Amino acid sequence: MNKNDFAPTPPMGWNSYDYYDTTVNEEQVKANADYMAKHLKKFGWEYIVVDIQWYAHHAGSRRDQFQYIPFSELEMDEYSRLQPDPVRFPSSAGGSGFGPLAAYIHSLGLKFGIHIMRGIPRAAAHAHSEILDTDVTADEVADPSSICGWNPDMYGVRDTAGGQAYYDSILRLYASWGVDFIKCDDICNTNPYKGNPYSARREIEMLSTAIDRSGRPIVLSLSPGPALIDKAWHYETHANMWRVTDDFWDDWKLLKDMFHRCELWQSHVSKGCYPDLDMLPLGHLGKGFGQERQTNFTCPEQRTMMTLWCLFGSPLMLGAELTQLDEWTLSLLTNKEVLALATCRPWQIRRDDTRAVWTAADEADGSFYAALFNLSDENREISVSMNELYSSPYVHGPNLNLNNKNNIGLRDLWKGETTALTDSEISRTLKPHDCVIYKIASAQ
Amino acid sequence: MNKNDFAPTPPMGWNSYDYYDTTVNEEQVKANADYMAKHLKKFGWEYIVVDIQWYAHHAGSRRDQFQYIPFSELEMDEYSRLQPDPVRFPSSAGGSGFGPLAAYIHSLGLKFGIHIMRGIPRAAAHAHSEILDTDVTADEVADPSSICGWNPDMYGVRDTAGGQAYYDSILRLYASWGVDFIKCDDICNTNPYKGNPYSARREIEMLSTAIDRSGRPIVLSLSPGPALIDKAWHYETHANMWRVTDDFWDDWKLLKDMFHRCELWQSHVSKGCYPDLDMLPLGHLGKGFGQERQTNFTCPEQRTMMTLWCLFGSPLMLGAELTQLDEWTLSLLTNKEVLALATCRPWQIRRDDTRAVWTAADEADGSFYAALFNLSDENREISVSMNELYSSPYVHGPNLNLNNKNNIGLRDLWKGETTALTDSEISRTLKPHDCVIYKIASAQ
Amino acid sequence: MNKNDFAPTPPMGWNSYDYYDTTVNEEQVKANADYMAKHLKKFGWEYIVVDIQWYAHHAGSRRDQFQYIPFSELEMDEYSRLQPDPVRFPSSAGGSGFGPLAAYIHSLGLKFGIHIMRGIPRAAAHAHSEILDTDVTADEVADPSSICGWNPDMYGVRDTAGGQAYYDSILRLYASWGVDFIKCDDICNTNPYKGNPYSARREIEMLSTAIDRSGRPIVLSLSPGPALIDKAWHYETHANMWRVTDDFWDDWKLLKDMFHRCELWQSHVSKGCYPDLDMLPLGHLGKGFGQERQTNFTCPEQRTMMTLWCLFGSPLMLGAELTQLDEWTLSLLTNKEVLALATCRPWQIRRDDTRAVWTAADEADGSFYAALFNLSDENREISVSMNELYSSPYVHGPNLNLNNKNNIGLRDLWKGETTALTDSEISRTLKPHDCVIYKIASAQ
Amino acid sequence: MNKNDFAPTPPMGWNSYDYYDTTVNEEQVKANADYMAKHLKKFGWEYIVVDIQWYAHHAGSRRDQFQYIPFSELEMDEYSRLQPDPVRFPSSAGGSGFGPLAAYIHSLGLKFGIHIMRGIPRAAAHAHSEILDTDVTADEVADPSSICGWNPDMYGVRDTAGGQAYYDSILRLYASWGVDFIKCDDICNTNPYKGNPYSARREIEMLSTAIDRSGRPIVLSLSPGPALIDKAWHYETHANMWRVTDDFWDDWKLLKDMFHRCELWQSHVSKGCYPDLDMLPLGHLGKGFGQERQTNFTCPEQRTMMTLWCLFGSPLMLGAELTQLDEWTLSLLTNKEVLALATCRPWQIRRDDTRAVWTAADEADGSFYAALFNLSDENREISVSMNELYSSPYVHGPNLNLNNKNNIGLRDLWKGETTALTDSEISRTLKPHDCVIYKIASAQ
Repeated sequence: MNKNDFAPTPPMGWNSYDYYDTTVNEEQVKANADYMAKHLKKFGWEYIVVDIQWYAHHAGSRRDQFQYIPFSELEMDEYSRLQPDPVRFPSSAGGSGFGPLAAYIHSLGLKFGIHIMRGIPRAAAHAHSEILDTDVTADEVADPSSICGWNPDMYGVRDTAGGQAYYDSILRLYASWGVDFIKCDDICNTNPYKGNPYSARREIEMLSTAIDRSGRPIVLSLSPGPALIDKAWHYETHANMWRVTDDFWDDWKLLKDMFHRCELWQSHVSKGCYPDLDMLPLGHLGKGFGQERQTNFTCPEQRTMMTLWCLFGSPLMLGAELTQLDEWTLSLLTNKEVLALATCRPWQIRRDDTRAVWTAADEADGSFYAALFNLSDENREISVSMNELYSSPYVHGPNLNLNNKNNIGLRDLWKGETTALTDSEISRTLKPHDCVIYKIASAQ
Repeated sequence: MNKNDFAPTPPMGWNSYDYYDTTVNEEQVKANADYMAKHLKKFGWEYIVVDIQWYAHHAGSRRDQFQYIPFSELEMDEYSRLQPDPVRFPSSAGGSGFGPLAAYIHSLGLKFGIHIMRGIPRAAAHAHSEILDTDVTADEVADPSSICGWNPDMYGVRDTAGGQAYYDSILRLYASWGVDFIKCDDICNTNPYKGNPYSARREIEMLSTAIDRSGRPIVLSLSPGPALIDKAWHYETHANMWRVTDDFWDDWKLLKDMFHRCELWQSHVSKGCYPDLDMLPLGHLGKGFGQERQTNFTCPEQRTMMTLWCLFGSPLMLGAELTQLDEWTLSLLTNKEVLALATCRPWQIRRDDTRAVWTAADEADGSFYAALFNLSDENREISVSMNELYSSPYVHGPNLNLNNKNNIGLRDLWKGETTALTDSEISRTLKPHDCVIYKIASAQ
Repeated sequence: MNKNDFAPTPPMGWNSYDYYDTTVNEEQVKANADYMAKHLKKFGWEYIVVDIQWYAHHAGSRRDQFQYIPFSELEMDEYSRLQPDPVRFPSSAGGSGFGPLAAYIHSLGLKFGIHIMRGIPRAAAHAHSEILDTDVTADEVADPSSICGWNPDMYGVRDTAGGQAYYDSILRLYASWGVDFIKCDDICNTNPYKGNPYSARREIEMLSTAIDRSGRPIVLSLSPGPALIDKAWHYETHANMWRVTDDFWDDWKLLKDMFHRCELWQSHVSKGCYPDLDMLPLGHLGKGFGQERQTNFTCPEQRTMMTLWCLFGSPLMLGAELTQLDEWTLSLLTNKEVLALATCRPWQIRRDDTRAVWTAADEADGSFYAALFNLSDENREISVSMNELYSSPYVHGPNLNLNNKNNIGLRDLWKGETTALTDSEISRTLKPHDCVIYKIASAQ
Repeated sequence: MNKNDFAPTPPMGWNSYDYYDTTVNEEQVKANADYMAKHLKKFGWEYIVVDIQWYAHHAGSRRDQFQYIPFSELEMDEYSRLQPDPVRFPSSAGGSGFGPLAAYIHSLGLKFGIHIMRGIPRAAAHAHSEILDTDVTADEVADPSSICGWNPDMYGVRDTAGGQAYYDSILRLYASWGVDFIKCDDICNTNPYKGNPYSARREIEMLSTAIDRSGRPIVLSLSPGPALIDKAWHYETHANMWRVTDDFWDDWKLLKDMFHRCELWQSHVSKGCYPDLDMLPLGHLGKGFGQERQTNFTCPEQRTMMTLWCLFGSPLMLGAELTQLDEWTLSLLTNKEVLALATCRPWQIRRDDTRAVWTAADEADGSFYAALFNLSDENREISVSMNELYSSPYVHGPNLNLNNKNNIGLRDLWKGETTALTDSEISRTLKPHDCVIYKIASAQ
């Protein structure tokens, strides 16, 4: 069982965070799963992920002051393992955990994921709770000097046999529930902890080992970013996806910065190994944060985002509340030709403060792509020559008979229109923050 | 009440750490106090300080693995305030805390000090314990992301009214016990916490305010070092002493480095404000660490240390077990002429890798000093000219009639011998790591 | 001869830079000297300093593009030593250098200073020019990897006998001219050179040695800032003044930042050793930069600047064109009571983003001062209690009979009015960026 | 003309530096070329590169003190362009430059390369020399604040039209000589210049543009390292090879560190884009440095180096004096099966302080490799399972019928022996610093 086989293409799904923050409940998760099964599954969308603090009791808490309430009450079993809050997830009552919810989602033909924090609950350490199948207790496994800078729930786990046993014990539990995907937080970049952003290196390895031992193919996603480019090999060896930026939201400045991130990570996309551009803040967002809104991105910005994520080969995780999706947003998520980019080989041709040009190669059939992005705040003509596209080591012009330009089709993937290639250069005037992507292939 | 009046000269005393680590008990503290009262008090030694974790229960603990046991049981009152471990400090039983021990020490004409960690016990935060005279609880006062990098007992305190109330409540307790001196740890330099070594700036201020409100003149000592030279004014404004290095032990490399520290901090010694060179690891040391030994310092190194500490005006805190002091060590601690240096004005003349030369001025009578240090590992002649000594802005040669050299006495403070100044230069061949200090004054 | 005696109080004078940039000529220097002799000398002003590039030929140059023209022609003698441009300084013709100009300034009872760049001219190194009284040539003395980041004229000098000989040779020349003051640039902080801002440490020492060998008491001023606080002792040992900030101009943001600098350096002011707050950009400024103007500072800001510079004990160097001084500016420069602050002992009481409070002690007579600064942009009441003033280790309240407040005079130094102290607190409402300074003394 | 086509496989050749330092002459270059043509050319070796300071006159210089003599005399044409020293390169006399030498090397069927320093000669700037086909002079093109930290010859070139014109003018000259390869120094990482190791970013682009404009396919190699991993895309876009470490020599510590470098850069090897592990210090080395010697590497270390360089796909540049090559060294350089690794796709399986395991995939035929390295100082058994080899995204086990192990050949490339694969794991005991590499393919 090779972890790269768990996700042969970039995972596509929905995550509860952008709309619900820490407040999502079972009914809401099911409603989104139902929508996905009905409208999105056939385009490849399949993961339903419950994000942070599903184990936290919110009643009587200080949610008005804190996103994550310090020293709050957590649902935990006798072996120091967090359990779903039974108030929000009624089917978990009686020790069945996320088993029933996972079964429901599987019944729809979808996959089920959960968020976890690196480490072991602080409450377990202070209570000296047991660790399953060991004679050590949580206080012996927890490292009191290893904490998350923004979430107060956990202590890091020591690099000992007891530490590995704890990770094994939670993965065994998750596998028994039927979990298919784990988004582990405070592990990819643990800044500002002791000034060493990669201090959790060993915990990544322990988690990877625990997944292997669980016997279940569970996709491993690491957060938060920015991931460290000089640790790329380690991420690639132990995880399926890792965040390359800090939290991404519907703000053009953050989207523009992604072009820099894609430049940095473009050589590190391969089967089972995906630099992660983070969730897509589309549609309806922000209710759990008290900021319910339609995405702040304009239509051109949304198109730019989808194009870049697909071109680059990023995982695609929807932040939108699915039950409120409008037609426009739906059209962005269901363009098969754009989604097909995910398995092509990307290459940045040029980038400056005002524009970016990328290509991608379909190594199967020799076709390739040209994507033009206007990063500036005014209308702008963006061009690329065929010769520049060939500068990608993965684009092999000769596969197409480029001398006979009339035989070469230029297909605008968002418009769905094909024209003949008439020049050795492709050029187009784009609105601010907008883009165009062409497929270049033999015109049959 | 001005904090500078609490310590008009550098504090001198004994601290339990170097010999006992975290294990000291009441009987041992009393024995050292008895010795001080009898043999050292008349030379100015007066503080008896109980160092770290007097509140920790050691029975059944993991002391074999850890210096500070993670998640161990702590003695605490109902208001989140730590109390002495009644097993080690029997007189504290029944809620009297350190009151009886302080009274005993005061009865000897000495002063009583304790060590504390910055913050509020983690156990109190997780138990949601009360804070005296407030309606907030410890979980609301504790900052779960502010921890010490090496000790697992506390959380930092939030910069709120509740946070100040907690500091007020512990200082009120300490004042009621009769505490005269507080060594607060994890506060002077909080590295590696979030990469900001001065993150506890506000807690220093809260502590200073709490002392002021306690109505008792309590000397405030901040640890650990290295203190930050660019925060000198803040230390000077809020504390009486602050550590300028990391922990100092009986190792020549550390002692040699102190010459660099003294160069750095020499302009920052004034009444009530003392850069602290840390405890004197003399005599018998290390029992609590399982490394019981006579100090590793040679006699010349010990002389060098005492000379530098006194010349610079550092506080003097003995690490030795006093009841085992030998004659040689005692002679180092009871040389009145050397101890008198503490109130003079020091100035480094020269320093390189092999030697250091200092002067100091007695601004009261116009006399001054020349100290020559051999920092190298071989015999070496060290010299200084009278003109160099006058380069100190505080040395005023004309106060002495230097033209008539025969009238000028040159007194070797360690030998206790006076000779006439016969040259415009003072020179002496010194053994490795050794020093000599002369007082230059009118020979009456 | 002790360098601290060269400047027993902070130097006061005029510098050509703020008005003339690199363009000043002999006639202009003389006109400013004449004015100083007539109007300012009696208040202690005495230095006339010719700033940067007096050796550069400007004819046919690229002054429109560059402040310092790269690879421009420099006036140089046969021994690699720069000489005044004879076009701008006619009296220097025939090899007499600055001798005649210095003689003129001395004849007015004033002192003469020049600016130099650290190092040896690049042109000399590339021409393999001679070094006086040695058999080495400039290429052997110059370090081709040691350059200034902003001025293209020089190479740093190697730490060799030949390097010292070069510094000796220029100081011998300057002494022969009658130079009293040298402002050496690119030496105090050599950032960004190789990321080591103190890379010129040895050149500071060579310069100091060369001054000593010259036999003339020449004040040594080091630029640019910010000086490094952890090198304070080295500056104090080798120089008379050193810049504690980057270039200072008539901009409130820079002035406000000086309060931080003064907090940092306040313990490092002593006889012959002056942290330097830089020139006073008052009066008429900027002609050489093509930005001729009256200072941008408001009257309150100018008062605040003069008060802080005097209180702190900074050198005072006028940037204004003296021949155009107005009455208001003149009144700022000739307040004897304010100027007298320079020899008192300063201490910051408090500082935050909106206000600063300082005291200073006259150790001679026991009187002391209270300075209140409004750093905010609105009217603000600022207070200080007598107890706070006593927190300075240098203020000794008991010298005044403070119980009988009526006997204590409170003198507003800028208004020149004295009232009785009627309360244990001094308070005043100040306009934005304004200040008040009181002297507190027995009212005879 | 696409720069990736200039070097479709990693360049292989000889460089004069490791044996001759700055002293190489025409006769020596020719002798090495002759040897290569006769003995190595048929194995793919083809470049002959003249390294640093071929333009420097060494007569009467200070070569005993300096590797690169400061302010020495350089051979330069009237347009600020460096020319070969005619003493060392007699055929260059009369303005023919390297043309005759290049012609000779071409006549042997080989290619000719030269080393250059980033920038324009300092001597040209100080002499205000002309730039070809422009009306600007060298002083206007040179940036006086941009220098190399270790070589005194050049100033960096300004980012202006004149700057580009200068680079164009030198490339036109090199193209006219017949240069096929340029190793540009002080450009890949310009540390310690101003603390910005990528300050020459624009000069890389200007050089790349100048090559394009020259019309000749000239391979561009950038030095020194370490190249910056976060600038990988920029190197890939503008250069053919870039050094990933500082200078590499025959020292095991440096060789061991290369495993870390290869981990870091493994995803960045593609056609025309080669992270460069630096020259191979084999055979006879060091004469020009006064340290003539046989390489310090043991035989196992040499095998490890060749295996890693080939496996990783690094350029191969011989440092050895070719005319003195022994049989053993020659055998390392002429193993066709090992050299064939250069076009396979590498992937690190595991690395710790004692061992490294790599695989590589031949994407053409589905065969793949297993390389085991013993990085420790004692004999050690190193293993890898077939499953681990499949964890490379580029190894596709199913291409081979792995269930029938007898059909799978395991070929030891250095021994030239093939055995059947008998287990699901490959294991071998290796001597310190030794390695083994197997090819795994269908046994026909």
